[in-house]
Amino acid sequence: MSLEQTDEENSIQEQENQSETSHYRIPLLLNPWKPCRAPRTAVKEWLLKLKCCLGSVCGIEWYGYATLGILTAVLSFLMDFIVAMLLRAHQWLYMNLEGNILLQFLCWTLYPACLCALAATFSHNICPFSTGSGVPEVRTMLAGFEMPHYLSLTNMFAKFLGLICTLAAGSTVFLGKVGPFVHLSTMLGAYLDNLCTLIQGSTKEKAVPEMLVVAAGDGVASCFGAPVSGVLFSVEVMCSHFALKHYCPCFFSAACGALTFHLLSMWSGDGETLQALFKTNFPTALPFYPLEILLFVFLGLLCGAVSCCYLFCHRWILNFTKTNTFLLTVIPKPYSYTTKQLLTSLLDSRQWSSQSHNASVQLEPLLEWSSSGAPVFLSLTVFLLMKMWMLVLACTLPLPAGYFMPVFVCGAALGRLFGEGVAYVSSSGAILGQQWGSVNPGGYALAGAAAFSGAVTHTLSPVLLAVELTGQFSHAVPILLSALLANSVARSGHRPSFYDALSISKKLPYLPSLKKACPRLPSTPVGRVLGVKSVQLQKAAGPAEVQRAVNSSTEAQIPVVDSHDSQILLGFVLRSELQMFLCFVQKVEGRLDEVCCIHPTSVLLSPHNTVKEAYSILSAAGAQTLFVADKGRLVGHITWSEMKRILETLAAEI
Amino acid sequence: MSLEQTDEENSIQEQENQSETSHYRIPLLLNPWKPCRAPRTAVKEWLLKLKCCLGSVCGIEWYGYATLGILTAVLSFLMDFIVAMLLRAHQWLYMNLEGNILLQFLCWTLYPACLCALAATFSHNICPFSTGSGVPEVRTMLAGFEMPHYLSLTNMFAKFLGLICTLAAGSTVFLGKVGPFVHLSTMLGAYLDNLCTLIQGSTKEKAVPEMLVVAAGDGVASCFGAPVSGVLFSVEVMCSHFALKHYCPCFFSAACGALTFHLLSMWSGDGETLQALFKTNFPTALPFYPLEILLFVFLGLLCGAVSCCYLFCHRWILNFTKTNTFLLTVIPKPYSYTTKQLLTSLLDSRQWSSQSHNASVQLEPLLEWSSSGAPVFLSLTVFLLMKMWMLVLACTLPLPAGYFMPVFVCGAALGRLFGEGVAYVSSSGAILGQQWGSVNPGGYALAGAAAFSGAVTHTLSPVLLAVELTGQFSHAVPILLSALLANSVARSGHRPSFYDALSISKKLPYLPSLKKACPRLPSTPVGRVLGVKSVQLQKAAGPAEVQRAVNSSTEAQIPVVDSHDSQILLGFVLRSELQMFLCFVQKVEGRLDEVCCIHPTSVLLSPHNTVKEAYSILSAAGAQTLFVADKGRLVGHITWSEMKRILETLAAEI
Repeated sequence: MSLEQTDEENSIQEQENQSETSHYRIPLLLNPWKPCRAPRTAVKEWLLKLKCCLGSVCGIEWYGYATLGILTAVLSFLMDFIVAMLLRAHQWLYMNLEGNILLQFLCWTLYPACLCALAATFSHNICPFSTGSGVPEVRTMLAGFEMPHYLSLTNMFAKFLGLICTLAAGSTVFLGKVGPFVHLSTMLGAYLDNLCTLIQGSTKEKAVPEMLVVAAGDGVASCFGAPVSGVLFSVEVMCSHFALKHYCPCFFSAACGALTFHLLSMWSGDGETLQALFKTNFPTALPFYPLEILLFVFLGLLCGAVSCCYLFCHRWILNFTKTNTFLLTVIPKPYSYTTKQLLTSLLDSRQWSSQSHNASVQLEPLLEWSSSGAPVFLSLTVFLLMKMWMLVLACTLPLPAGYFMPVFVCGAALGRLFGEGVAYVSSSGAILGQQWGSVNPGGYALAGAAAFSGAVTHTLSPVLLAVELTGQFSHAVPILLSALLANSVARSGHRPSFYDALSISKKLPYLPSLKKACPRLPSTPVGRVLGVKSVQLQKAAGPAEVQRAVNSSTEAQIPVVDSHDSQILLGFVLRSELQMFLCFVQKVEGRLDEVCCIHPTSVLLSPHNTVKEAYSILSAAGAQTLFVADKGRLVGHITWSEMKRILETLAAEI
Repeated sequence: MSLEQTDEENSIQEQENQSETSHYRIPLLLNPWKPCRAPRTAVKEWLLKLKCCLGSVCGIEWYGYATLGILTAVLSFLMDFIVAMLLRAHQWLYMNLEGNILLQFLCWTLYPACLCALAATFSHNICPFSTGSGVPEVRTMLAGFEMPHYLSLTNMFAKFLGLICTLAAGSTVFLGKVGPFVHLSTMLGAYLDNLCTLIQGSTKEKAVPEMLVVAAGDGVASCFGAPVSGVLFSVEVMCSHFALKHYCPCFFSAACGALTFHLLSMWSGDGETLQALFKTNFPTALPFYPLEILLFVFLGLLCGAVSCCYLFCHRWILNFTKTNTFLLTVIPKPYSYTTKQLLTSLLDSRQWSSQSHNASVQLEPLLEWSSSGAPVFLSLTVFLLMKMWMLVLACTLPLPAGYFMPVFVCGAALGRLFGEGVAYVSSSGAILGQQWGSVNPGGYALAGAAAFSGAVTHTLSPVLLAVELTGQFSHAVPILLSALLANSVARSGHRPSFYDALSISKKLPYLPSLKKACPRLPSTPVGRVLGVKSVQLQKAAGPAEVQRAVNSSTEAQIPVVDSHDSQILLGFVLRSELQMFLCFVQKVEGRLDEVCCIHPTSVLLSPHNTVKEAYSILSAAGAQTLFVADKGRLVGHITWSEMKRILETLAAEI
């Protein structure tokens, strides 16, 4: 329940492990069949000493959390590095074809198209589970369901390579890496969890290993070096109840990841010290006028409304399957910048509209927003419409790709458009007769980014992400207000979020999403959806009946009833114990209750309990099997796999 | 389970309410006995219209959340205002007694002593439950236990006035207002919850009203205008599982509170726009050298170690009860500054040690840290030792008072001491042969504050509080690292946190704290601690037996068994239905199962379930009564009050 429980359990485990290791050591040293006995023994002795030494500082799993954070950050940095190289190769090729328009066009379109095709091929042939962002699948796993395909090594390989191709297709496909990194770090987490379990030697089974919960927070933290928003994102997206015992491990791992990411960036020559990824320089003396808060509130409502349109289009297009990749690569030629360039320019604190008016004050070039002669407003609007429509199309591509960052950039463009409008109107003194000289459109861009991405994903953590990405704290309160209002608009009318829509379209057994599609689903009584009655034994069962039960059941726990007529549930026996019982009474006669221990059942459900109650008790009890009894009589049982079947059946009925 | 469930339930409720209001309207208009019919009718009609109008935008409870945030912020501002006036009166009195040392001494000591005595009198006579910070009690209530004394109107009154007196005793007693404000906002929340329930007309009973959870986050947010850390503090301190459906309401209310607090500060002349409470101006170009991260890590470990000493002293002194208030008011004369002055000076980015060396560069006076001739290090050390010892003593005073902010300041002083040392050593070029010219001791002070207060309370939210209080984001990663390491040191060995120690000493039925005092407590089987068997009925019970049961039981649900011999649990009947049954069959004979509906039990526990499992299922199921059955036979029942009795019994055994 609480954080300290883990420590306590660990210390007990440690003692057990230490006693176990001393037991194990003797057969290890005496094993005469393997070669190189002396060196192997020396290495193993040394490893055992290392383990004791490490374990005396803190639990082995804490090293796992640190390793997880660091590895994810290294992967993220490596990916950024490779992608930057591929992008530079593309530009170099394009430049070298100067003079031949046709070849340049083909280079511009075919290079990303080939990369996309490569990514799609990887996904299709190596592991079809690696497409998409992975966030809906990860949260289904964190809810307690086993989905081994999504944690396999091939999936990790396909996802990593596919994501590099997607990102190298660059601004043209304009997709992000947040979601896939959450998935990648979860896979890493699953391996590290296995490793830790191996080192600790414990075989305790949990529905959801703690390492996976920690890994989900690492994804965001390692992509942007933003630990706080990473943890909060995983809290918000990943579970409906957050257990506080995961809080410290999550922050610890995320801090390790963020630190590694920042240090790697620094060493690769990005700066003299650790700093925010998209560092801004907003004026701090007067970041905004108090009355502007009303405008931020209005921007929040606007973002909420736009997000509703976007999500509607997204749900609509999820009904179709594939679109033409080539189409996407051709269109967006005028705005071919990386996310970093786009965000840096959008979050600039100077006004573009006044700059294009006042040509004498020519500062650094701000990409091409106003230099092409078109007014800033027009170019921003065109950019926004194009990018949003393309983003809707891109969601259907069978690629490993993230959709969070593109949404964030769209929100920034929307906010910038609004902010430029405010700056234009206020500098002409039209509002309330007073002139606001120094309205900062960058602040609106930041608020728009947080509000829009928050509304699309139904989360508030983009507020902290906006703060952590820019290192800009002065606008925190107005950004929070914008995001809250955008969320309230987006959530009204039980509309599904972006991830909910994906869950529903993939028919994943994730209850909170299914509830959006069918509000009555969680209140279905368990009795109505229970499967065929499980194998049961009566307490007077002989070896023949036990043999039949062992053969016909695959469950670990087999219920025992008073007699087949009365059906009064007495408890359960373990399948492993039954197999021992069969060896023991092979010839003689013996009754079940005389030889086997009948374990008392822990929690009993009634058939009148709703699916939602069964789901939450399955999570809270930490049990693997819940028996359902009506007035003391056995009716059925619920396990995680049974719950998965129930939810999938109910989802198919929608 | 998720956020949307609330919306959905609300919309259903709203429809019900609307139909109910149309029902209610007719008797209202026809009621002939009350005076002023016409105006009353008009007002009620108008109110009903207003309610419909408000309810059409969003649920009534959202107005409640906003009101809660705003009211708490207004209370906080009002308190600050009154306290500032009382402090100024004290200074004025002291100044006017210039020349008479004895009178000055008496004024200096008696004024705060009288205020403390007044606060203690308020607490003792009006409401003895108003002493202390209130955080341990609030989290016990949020865990599901009813403690009506702690939410009474007299308690709120006594706490508010008592807290004003405590704070006005000022730097001399050196106590904060965070904890009491969490308690005050919870009381406000309880009233607003009643009001909302009244307006909505629903009678649905919940173990913990949502408004209370929201209120817990408001306390911190409204004290400092820090919404994010306010919500995270309540998440960390208040519960062992955080339900995500509370996330948006918490942030909404906290944002309203923070905005109100900032606006009130602004209007009272504190600045031109919204800004952080203790705004700092750290250099942004090179906030810290990368190698300094190691020093921050070391500072975290140091803070963790010091927090262990502090908590040990705190637990030790909790065994004694009262200390002499007069003693406290006499000692701290040399350091009589408000928290704001102290923090502003401690977080200054300039080096004091070099300043006192280089007298030619005389900047603004930095309080008295180095002007009295003593070296900076000595005066900081003396300050730190004095304040910490006084703080340990102050915890035993029977006053409404918070201990978070004093701990935060102590941490800042510890960090400053460390930072000054680093600055001194580095400017003399002793580290690694390279000279760091611009080491910022203020950054260490900030990290120290977050790490020490985090270690004492076993939380990480002070990291965000440090960022929100100062608006300084550049040091976020090192501060987080310091706080994580300090936490890991403080939590090792299952030591109780500050609030745990208070919970244990007050014998509150809060499981996570009790677990620290007695690790075996949560795994006690329920069967061992169940109270006397509850009243039960057999299904063939006649009116006489039912009458006896209704008279002897006070539970809302009375279990029904097959027969008193077999004890097979069939379900339960509601006490209210039994009373109707008695009216109905007063004379004729009738069997219980023929006349009453026997409701099926929802979740059944077994006597082998542990106390912890029962506790978590009671929370997860949202049920008021859980029956305990062994092999179908009724053994007992568990309600929140029964659980409270069990935990209090177990706590008494410690």
